[in-house]
Order: sequence, then C-alpha cells, then structure tokens
Amino acid sequence: MRAAVYQGPGAIEMQDVPDAALREATDAVVRVVRACVCGSDLWSYRGIVKPPPGSRRGHEFVGVVEEVGAEVASVRPGDFVVVPFQWCDNVCDPCRDGLQTSCVNTGTFGAAGADGGQGEAVRVPYADGTCVVVPGGLSAVDERQLASLLALTDVAATGLHGAVLSGVGRGGEVVVIGDGAVGLSAVLGARSVLGAERVVLVSTHLDRSALGRELGATDVVAARGDEGVAVVRDLLGRGPAHVVEAVGNPDAWDMALAMVRPGGTVGSVGVPHVRPELPLFPLLRGNVGVRVGLAPARHYLPELLERVLAGTYDAGRVFDLTLPLEDVAGAYQAMDARRSVKTMLVA
Amino acid sequence: MRAAVYQGPGAIEMQDVPDAALREATDAVVRVVRACVCGSDLWSYRGIVKPPPGSRRGHEFVGVVEEVGAEVASVRPGDFVVVPFQWCDNVCDPCRDGLQTSCVNTGTFGAAGADGGQGEAVRVPYADGTCVVVPGGLSAVDERQLASLLALTDVAATGLHGAVLSGVGRGGEVVVIGDGAVGLSAVLGARSVLGAERVVLVSTHLDRSALGRELGATDVVAARGDEGVAVVRDLLGRGPAHVVEAVGNPDAWDMALAMVRPGGTVGSVGVPHVRPELPLFPLLRGNVGVRVGLAPARHYLPELLERVLAGTYDAGRVFDLTLPLEDVAGAYQAMDARRSVKTMLVA
Repeated sequence: MRAAVYQGPGAIEMQDVPDAALREATDAVVRVVRACVCGSDLWSYRGIVKPPPGSRRGHEFVGVVEEVGAEVASVRPGDFVVVPFQWCDNVCDPCRDGLQTSCVNTGTFGAAGADGGQGEAVRVPYADGTCVVVPGGLSAVDERQLASLLALTDVAATGLHGAVLSGVGRGGEVVVIGDGAVGLSAVLGARSVLGAERVVLVSTHLDRSALGRELGATDVVAARGDEGVAVVRDLLGRGPAHVVEAVGNPDAWDMALAMVRPGGTVGSVGVPHVRPELPLFPLLRGNVGVRVGLAPARHYLPELLERVLAGTYDAGRVFDLTLPLEDVAGAYQAMDARRSVKTMLVA
Repeated sequence: MRAAVYQGPGAIEMQDVPDAALREATDAVVRVVRACVCGSDLWSYRGIVKPPPGSRRGHEFVGVVEEVGAEVASVRPGDFVVVPFQWCDNVCDPCRDGLQTSCVNTGTFGAAGADGGQGEAVRVPYADGTCVVVPGGLSAVDERQLASLLALTDVAATGLHGAVLSGVGRGGEVVVIGDGAVGLSAVLGARSVLGAERVVLVSTHLDRSALGRELGATDVVAARGDEGVAVVRDLLGRGPAHVVEAVGNPDAWDMALAMVRPGGTVGSVGVPHVRPELPLFPLLRGNVGVRVGLAPARHYLPELLERVLAGTYDAGRVFDLTLPLEDVAGAYQAMDARRSVKTMLVA
C-alpha cells in the first residue's frame, strides 16, 4: 500500500510500504477515507523534533473497517469509524476517568512501529476501545459531515479540551490565544459545547478571525504581546478568569500568563517544543492555575459525533484545502507556508 | 525601637531602628506580642536570595494596636489583632475574589521600605483591610491560642491553601509532600477544614511525622524519590488525584509530578527559588493541573480565627522552640540547623 513516510525535515514522501495487517487479536485494519495534516506534524517537518527517517506520518483519519482480530467484538468489517489520534483500551482507570490519552495501553498513530493516518490503511490496536462507529455507515454522511468527523479525531477535540482545561463554563468568558485550527476549534467548543457567553479570539489574520466569528467568537483582538493583553483587559474590564493557550510557543504562553486574572486558569493544548518549561513565579504571585494536556479525543467523540450527525457542529470548517492523499507533500508545504490553516487528504 | 535587620547571609541582628510610625491616614501601628521566623526567611539567611543589607525581617506577627490613622474605622487602639503576612485593602477585585495576596495595594512586611514583623512594632498599611481583630482582646486568649493565632498569619493559611489548591474535598484523599511547618499545616487544613478522609504525609523525620499524625495524617510515607512514589501508589492503589507540594525544591516537585494520577492536580505553596520553572511535557502527557500560589491568609483568617478561639484548631503546634525577640539570631540558627521546625519569638 501507499503511505506518507518521513525522510527528514521538509521531506515527506508517499512510498510503497507493507500492507496494514492484523498483529494482535484486538486489532482492526481500517481503510482510510479521509486523513489530514496536524499542526503538530509540522514540528518534525520543520526539524524542531526529529523522528527517525522512515517513520510513518499522520494520526488523524476516518475510514472503513476492513478486517478485525478474533477478540474484536464491537467493530465489524464494513463499519465506518472515527479513530482518535491515540488508541486506547477504554477500560483501564485513566480511560474510565475520561483520560484515554493516559490509557495504560495507549500509543499514537504514526509513532515508531505504528501505522500512520496518512496512508491507505491503518492497523488500529485495541479496536473495541479505540474506534467509534458512525451509525448508518459512510453512505449516511455528506461531505461536510465527513470533514467534521475527520476533525473530531484530533483538532476539534483538542480545541474543546483546551476550553475544558481553562475551566470556562456556561455563561462564562474565555479568551482563546491562537487562530490556528486548534484555536478555532477551541472557539467552537467553548461556545457550542460549554456554553460560554463571551469568547474572545486573539487573531491577527483577517481570514482566520472571520472564520473564528462564524464559529462563535464574540470578539476578536487583532493585537499580540503587551498591546493584545491591554486590549483584552479593556474589553473585559479586567483580566480573564479563563484563557486557552492554543499555540504552544513562548509568545502565546507569555501573553496568557500576562492577561489571566489572579486566581484564573490557563488551559493549554499547544505542544511546547520551543520552551518546554513554565516560569513558576508568575503563577505563584497570581495564584494562576495551569492545566496542560493531550486531549482525550476518545472521551469527547460520542457527544461530538452526535452533534456532527445532527448537523449542529461544523468542526470541519477548519479545513480550507483538500488534496489527494498521494499529494501529502503538497499538504505539508501548504500548511508550512501558512497557505492553508488545515489540509484534508482524500484517499 | 528594636528590630531584626538583615546584614547578609547568616547575619540577622537586632538593632535600634526608628520607631514604627503612622505614614498614611489608613495606617495603624501595632505593638508586636508574638512573632516568628518563616521557612521563606531562610532563603535570604542562606544567601539564595539577597535582599539589600539593612532590610527589616519577618512578616508574621500578632500584636496590640497602638495608634491608627485618621481614616481607619474598624480597628482601635488597644485591639488585639492578627495581621496576615501581606497587607491588603480588602475591597479591590482580587480581594473580593478572596485573593488578597493579589490586592492592587498589597505589599509584604519586611520588604523594602516596610517594617518587618520581627521587631517591637510595625506600621500596618491599609489597617482596616489588613487587620483582623480578636474579640475579647489579648487577655481572652491563652498561650496555646496565642501560638495558633500567630500561625494563622502565614504558615497555617499557607498549608491550608496548598490543600485548597490541590482540589481535595470532603471525603477525598490527598498526599502532602514535605514535613516542614507548611506541610504539617497542610495536613491540619486538609483534614480539619476541608474534611479529607485520607491524608498521606511524606515525611522522613520521625518527630515531624509523629506531629503530622497528631494533626490529622492518616498515613505516613517515610521514603522519598521513586521509592516514595511507589509506596504512595501501593498505599492508595493508584496515583493520588490531589498532591500538595509544600517544599518548593526540585525533589519535591519531581516527586509530586511522578506520583499524581492522570488528570490530577498538584497544589504548590513552596517557594521555587532553586528551580523556578516547571517542565511542561509531564503535565501535557498526564493532563496534570498545577496550581501554585501565595496564600491569601487574610481570606482564611476569619474562619480559622473562629476555630482557634473555639479550641478546635491547634495551628500553633508547629512551634517547637520559643525564644525572646531579642534572640532572633538564635531563632534563625535553630531553624537553619533544623533544630527547630518553627521558632516563636516573644516580644
């Protein structure tokens, strides 16, 4: 089969690789229908992290089950499934706590030894725990829903999780820092799922902030750094109690810590490769809480799936470019050059 | 008057200084009855932080009001008052949120330009907001209560705050790392105020762990590092959801982050001078929340004062040595050499 393979910074190539195949009795093999490129895939593309050359790429995909192992009970060949970016058994303590990214049997698609989502097919470990079956199958969803279901595998869940971590609730106010696909998804999640009344998006790109407004942002702050902090405070009357850091770089973190009010909480879902530590004194002085975490997409999937099928959750709006899977290199190039917020791949 | 003055690492001296006096109409002057030495005072004593030579020392004291400014309404000369380690106006937004350490008009006793608590008298800014009057006055409390009231100015509030930050509630389980005065106070607060059912104290000193048990610890883990983490996990069946970091040094933080369960929270009240940053990837992987903060002692004071006067809150048990104020140097020596958990000074 064909799959995206990492050759080094800037070099993602579609190559012939061994067919995805069952290895354990709890596995399924899923034929990919749609996949995409994650903002976190760009870390290796840009050489900031360096996976071994030859690694598979991609951890976001939806597809049709082709084959299941002898112990798989709840997933059948022909099922159309949404697969979160990390697999899980969904029965251990962390899974029962709704933190499937900390499952004792978890792993990430595209990591060493695993198939990647950017390929024609994927071996899915712990298929019963991992896969969420779409009622009615592939034929029951339209293109718009297909894009949204793909988004649920990571970016939509990650954005929502950022909002959850920030502690914002019904009627509340939250500031989202970052207008990438995760930030935009945080806006959608904060507003539609959590019921926040005021969602302030920090965004300096006109096209992205316009989309942010469509997804539920009530205000846009088109300034960064100290100026952005001042504008947010003016807008809200004081610093926000809930901030979502949806970038991961030091500028976004510094802005979050500078604006949050004493006793407030920063929820962060950005991957902090550039500065992997947090200064403690600003937290200490302001009694600021920090919650950072990989989103348990599997936990959010059932509810978000229902919303997508009901037509009330347009998570797929973050895709602004669609390419054939075979042109995965073009997808990385487009996202790296910021010509695309997020690129979908059609298998 | 006489007051403790910092001359450099290892050198705290009682000296003649100008009498404490009113400066603003909102000030009071309080004659000190009891004061003490804080664990955080040892940072400068040990040369880890370096205040300017000549700085006053101490931020924990109780005393009798001697004089008040023209605008002070709720505190009268002769009142016996408990004074939190930071002053506050108690009317601004953060104060109303119960975060008086973030008051827009706050400052710390013993900091540049302020009187220190280790002296015969102290100018107390924003006396109406800062001072908590003890009903019945000094004559209504016994020696045991006096020690406990002194503890409320910082250490008892700081320990309780650590437990609050960890998120433990009624019937819950919490692990307290650190058997200094703050850790012991966290045990007391978690158990008596928050109603935790299981309080595990990590303590390798027999005398301190014995006191910890008297204050409410249900279990003691006499091991540190990986071994301590393993013992805690065995004891609780899995990692704890709530951990109090009551030391501030890297070993305590590492232990907290290693033991906390996915999705759990570390509440920290240790001052992180040795490693003032936190690694983000362990938080990200485990969805671990961190809340770090200076305790708003003023917020907790009314409730804790009631408990002390009712005889149900023995916060003063952390004092194991009493010296005359004039021997403040001996108090620092005793605590620095770990001959005393916490030393009280009689003015």
